Amino acid sequence: MKEMAGQARAEGRIIGLVPTMGALHEGHASLIVRAKRECSPVIASIFVNPKQFGPNEDFSKYPRTFESDVEKLQHAGVDVLFAPEAAEIYPKDFSTHVQVDGLSDRLEGRSRPGHFRGVATVVMKLLQIVQPNLTYFGRKDAQQARIIGQMARDLNLDSEIVVCPIVREADGLALSSRNVYLNPEERKAATVLYQALNAAKQELSGGVRDALHLQTSLRRKLSGEKLAAVDYAEIVDAESFEPVVRVSRACYVLLAVFIGKTRLIDNLYVVPKEPGSDEFVFQL
Amino acid sequence: MKEMAGQARAEGRIIGLVPTMGALHEGHASLIVRAKRECSPVIASIFVNPKQFGPNEDFSKYPRTFESDVEKLQHAGVDVLFAPEAAEIYPKDFSTHVQVDGLSDRLEGRSRPGHFRGVATVVMKLLQIVQPNLTYFGRKDAQQARIIGQMARDLNLDSEIVVCPIVREADGLALSSRNVYLNPEERKAATVLYQALNAAKQELSGGVRDALHLQTSLRRKLSGEKLAAVDYAEIVDAESFEPVVRVSRACYVLLAVFIGKTRLIDNLYVVPKEPGSDEFVFQL
Repeated sequence: MKEMAGQARAEGRIIGLVPTMGALHEGHASLIVRAKRECSPVIASIFVNPKQFGPNEDFSKYPRTFESDVEKLQHAGVDVLFAPEAAEIYPKDFSTHVQVDGLSDRLEGRSRPGHFRGVATVVMKLLQIVQPNLTYFGRKDAQQARIIGQMARDLNLDSEIVVCPIVREADGLALSSRNVYLNPEERKAATVLYQALNAAKQELSGGVRDALHLQTSLRRKLSGEKLAAVDYAEIVDAESFEPVVRVSRACYVLLAVFIGKTRLIDNLYVVPKEPGSDEFVFQL
Repeated sequence: MKEMAGQARAEGRIIGLVPTMGALHEGHASLIVRAKRECSPVIASIFVNPKQFGPNEDFSKYPRTFESDVEKLQHAGVDVLFAPEAAEIYPKDFSTHVQVDGLSDRLEGRSRPGHFRGVATVVMKLLQIVQPNLTYFGRKDAQQARIIGQMARDLNLDSEIVVCPIVREADGLALSSRNVYLNPEERKAATVLYQALNAAKQELSGGVRDALHLQTSLRRKLSGEKLAAVDYAEIVDAESFEPVVRVSRACYVLLAVFIGKTRLIDNLYVVPKEPGSDEFVFQL
C-alpha cells in the first residue's frame, strides 16, 4: 500500500482516502462519490479497529460483510481497497498511541473510554501508510471528525480532513452500520433521534437560543419513546465540544441514545449564516 | 519548511534530519557528518522543546547559544536550519500527544515523568514537517532513540531512525549540552561515569555475565566519587529496556548520575559478536 501510494504521489496525483470499518452503506457511498470528484486514485480502507472498541462493546459482533463491501466499492469506482489484518496493523509489541486531550474526554469519549485514542491511533497509521491528500469522514461522527482534524493540525499532517453530510433513510434515521442490530420495533422507534433533532431545529428557527430550554425539549421528545434511553443530549460548541449556555456561534446538537441495546448517535449542525450573525443555517 | 521538503522529495532527493535542542557540540557535529555522507539536503532543527522538560527541570536555564550554533551548522555544511518558535510548534489550543507505552515508563521515564511523551510528540511533528528519509540521533540517549524507533515502526512513519556513536572528551566524559553546568571540580568528578562503564566493560570482557554482580561493581565504583549520586545503574535488554538477570543478548549498561545538581547519563552498548554468541563486542 505504501509503495503504491508513494508512486501515486511521485506522479503528482491527488490521493483520496475513505477510511471505513466495512459494513458499508449509502453514507460510505456518499464519501466515495465526493472523493471520486476530487481525487484519483480513491482508496477505501476496511479495518474493524479493535482499539476503538471498549471491553464491553460490540467488537466481536460488529457487522462484517466483506464480500458485499467489495462489490459496493467496485460498483462505486474505488480504485484501491486497503484491507489489512489486525496483526499487520498491531504487531505483537505494538505500543504507541496518539491521544487528543480534552476533546477526547467528553461525550462519546466519556461514554466510551479509550475510544478516541483508538480512533486517532488507527487513523494516524492509515494516513502514514496511504499518504492521502484528502481524507473523508461522515458528519454523523461529528466528534470523531473534529478530533481527527485537531490531530492533523497539531501533528502537522499533510492530509486535509473533509467532513461530509449525514445520509438518512426516508424516515430520517441516520445511516449506520449498527442499524442492522435493530429489530423491526426498535427500527421504528429509532426515528425518534431524527424527530428530536428536527424539533430542535424548528425551535432554533423560531428564535430559541437558550441551550437548557432546547435540551429540555430534546429530552422530553426522546422520553416519549419508551424504547429509547438517553445517554446524552447536549448543545456544544462546534470547536471545543464544550456545552454552551446560549446558541450564539457554530454549535452541534448532539444525541446518543440507546434503542433497546443498540446505541445510536446523531446530530444537528447549527452555523451562523454570516460570521457573527444571530441568524443560523442548519445541517441535519 | 514543509514546502521546501516537499519540493526536495518531489525531486527524489534524500532528506536527512538532525533534530537538536541547540547548544551544539561535537556529538551533534558527528551526526551532521554522518547525515552529509548519506543525504542531500541535510536539515538541522533547533528547538528547545518545553514539553520534554518536567516542572522541576532546567527548561528556562537550558543553554541557548543560537549565534554560535548557526556558525557551527554553516561550518558543518548543513543545508537548512529549521528553528521554529514554541508558539508555532505548540499553538494555543494544541492538544495532541504521542505516547509510546512501556518503554517510556522506565529509567529516564520514571525519573522524568512525561519526558518521553514530550520527545515523541515533538519528533513526530518534526518528521511530518521535514519528511526526512533518514533521521539521526545520538546513542548517548539510548532510550530516546529506542522509543523513537518504536514510534516510527508502530505509526508506519517513512523515516529511518539512525543511531550514531557517543562522542567523548579526551578523558571519556560523554559530550552533552548539560556539561556546561559543571564547575571545574564537578567536571573532573563527572568522568566517573565513563570509568564505571569502562570497568563494567572489563568485567564483561573477562567473562562476567551476572547483572547483579555488574551492577554492584558499578555502584561501588560510582560511590567512590563523593560528588556523585546515582539515580540508576542498570543492565537492560536493548529492545525492551527491561532489567536482565544475565547478559546473554544485546544489552545496555545504563547510568544516570547526579554530579552536584547536574544530572548526567551515559551508557555502554553490549552486543553479541554473532547472533546467539556468548562473545560480545562493546560500544562505549
